[in-house]
Amino acid sequence: MSDKFAFEVVCEDATCSARIGKLRTARAELETPVFMPVGTQASVKTQAPSDVAATGSRLILANTYHLMLRPGAELVHELGGVQRFMAWPHALLTDSGGYQVFSLAKLRKLDDDGVTFRSHIDGSRHALSPERSMQVQALLGSDIAMVLDECPPGDAERADVQRALERTTRWAERCLACEAAADQARFGIVQGGSFLDLRVAHLETIASMPFEGLALGGFSVGEAMSVTYELLGELGPRMPRDRPRYLMGVGKPIDLLRAIAAGIDMFDCVLPTRNARNAQALTWNGRVNLKQARHRQDQAPLDARCDCPVCATYTRAYLRHLFAAGEMLGPRLLTQHNLHFYQSLTRAAREAIRERRYASFARDAEAQMFELDEVNTGR
Amino acid sequence: MSDKFAFEVVCEDATCSARIGKLRTARAELETPVFMPVGTQASVKTQAPSDVAATGSRLILANTYHLMLRPGAELVHELGGVQRFMAWPHALLTDSGGYQVFSLAKLRKLDDDGVTFRSHIDGSRHALSPERSMQVQALLGSDIAMVLDECPPGDAERADVQRALERTTRWAERCLACEAAADQARFGIVQGGSFLDLRVAHLETIASMPFEGLALGGFSVGEAMSVTYELLGELGPRMPRDRPRYLMGVGKPIDLLRAIAAGIDMFDCVLPTRNARNAQALTWNGRVNLKQARHRQDQAPLDARCDCPVCATYTRAYLRHLFAAGEMLGPRLLTQHNLHFYQSLTRAAREAIRERRYASFARDAEAQMFELDEVNTGR
Repeated sequence: MSDKFAFEVVCEDATCSARIGKLRTARAELETPVFMPVGTQASVKTQAPSDVAATGSRLILANTYHLMLRPGAELVHELGGVQRFMAWPHALLTDSGGYQVFSLAKLRKLDDDGVTFRSHIDGSRHALSPERSMQVQALLGSDIAMVLDECPPGDAERADVQRALERTTRWAERCLACEAAADQARFGIVQGGSFLDLRVAHLETIASMPFEGLALGGFSVGEAMSVTYELLGELGPRMPRDRPRYLMGVGKPIDLLRAIAAGIDMFDCVLPTRNARNAQALTWNGRVNLKQARHRQDQAPLDARCDCPVCATYTRAYLRHLFAAGEMLGPRLLTQHNLHFYQSLTRAAREAIRERRYASFARDAEAQMFELDEVNTGR
Repeated sequence: MSDKFAFEVVCEDATCSARIGKLRTARAELETPVFMPVGTQASVKTQAPSDVAATGSRLILANTYHLMLRPGAELVHELGGVQRFMAWPHALLTDSGGYQVFSLAKLRKLDDDGVTFRSHIDGSRHALSPERSMQVQALLGSDIAMVLDECPPGDAERADVQRALERTTRWAERCLACEAAADQARFGIVQGGSFLDLRVAHLETIASMPFEGLALGGFSVGEAMSVTYELLGELGPRMPRDRPRYLMGVGKPIDLLRAIAAGIDMFDCVLPTRNARNAQALTWNGRVNLKQARHRQDQAPLDARCDCPVCATYTRAYLRHLFAAGEMLGPRLLTQHNLHFYQSLTRAAREAIRERRYASFARDAEAQMFELDEVNTGR
């Protein structure tokens, strides 16, 4: 165990593969399963860092692609790194930048060396190689850096997935060949699309490298969630027991419930923050859309079971009014609630694992969420 | 002194007409001079009520026009009034709705009975009479209601100003003829444009009526601020000593400094909240525009003299980044700072009055603000 990173499994459920881990980075100590709120541009949208910390969160994610373009990695470094820049005193994970290059940038050119692209902001030309990604993440100063990988679309052919996977392996080796930044752990990424044999083989390859943690990339990119759940059931238990397992970019509450059962430890997703800005609250009883007229006179809180400041203070009628009137306070309050809900969900999951009743907890939680929300099944 | 409202002058400066008052409404007790943040649609834009209260503010303003259209005065009443609706446990002043009818509504028709108009939101037809304004404000449940007045434009002819003023007098009488709502005080409004003799005569008329407070309306509607200052110097000292004096819709920090010297007790203005959303901070050293590139690497706080949480936590470089990146946290943090600044400004003014040195305090504060900000002189 180094000073900058440690992980140990402290509890395993008997009813499934769920587990509780203790994760320590340079700046935080926390328990897994953990959900990481997304602070894309060094801000968890609408929230002050103290709001995020008040939900219990101690580890957030920031996007390398966005920060390298604006305000620039070198400037962030001069200003003391992302954490000091945004006044977030806890832990931070940065992605490699690759995913956003593929989804946002223009005129990209991808080869073995890396990817060149034009900024979606001002059209300026940039390059991202495995080495530059590690350098940028070192400048950003995150606790956990991700390797650059190639993530093919969800409907990619087997041969394309295979090629992307092989490139991802070569890039992982090049990332590891870079000198590790002080206080920064590095996680490898497993690709392989929806092909179980490719996934298993790539997992073995990446697991054989000295990464502090392992991530599953290339999920939640358009494939059916039933496929994801099935693959997770196979892959989760095969991932190294002594290192954290991170499922990138996932997901809905039910996705977390399912993935935790498969032994996944870490999650990130824009869903709780993005959906909040579209007037959608996530609750123990499913989704609540505050644009609906039925909330107009509703003096109930968003979620009677929730102990967040928003549910303690405001009625649905007022929250609906804020969205109807276009008030920024609406997105802010709903984001606060949704982040609180995700922390409550993972906290309740840990509690259930500790008491060796995770499978029944997840079944009950899912059933309750379905009752009011058939869209949210992902099946 | 009734249970619902009381005012007494507790201290008068020797160097000018500035004074400290103690104002008590049904829901708050506070000292004047006081600045009221504007919560147009039952939300001080971007701020939670606890943020506003944390600046020291105990009295805010909400707009009758907006709330009668959306969500509707009757609904707000059902939901417990504006304060309970928005979870603001302190005092609230509502305007009459008239000012926004003139500035926002469409197809309005004004006569002695009142004004009919179409909503700027959905085109629906509404009417506002002195009686309906008082009824709506009673439904909204504010601590202080304003009479319906007619506010002519800043460049109006004397004859038009005279006519508007006479109508305002008739409407004031009709407002007073309505039964006062429980826990609600009523303020009269003095009009008269930039004509001192009309202003003085109207002041005498309105002051002769049993209003709990007197307001000066029709300032900050396009006239030169030098004219306003001159008129205030004449009118302020002529206003009844034993009732609060409220200058509506004003203003910039320098306007407050000048008006306080003339004996004004109460202010409201969208400037600190609106300008914040446009990246403009108000500080003891004048305005700071965070869109300017010179703040890009600036690790200083917005205002080294400010003790607000924003100045204690964030650098100008980060705040600038938030605006450059279009993050909602930018407007939110700048609003918090600006509201804090306005409360600090009025607090410092009261301190100076208490020590009978207001004139020199105001001169020094103005000089300091001018140094960096020549636009802000209003001269």
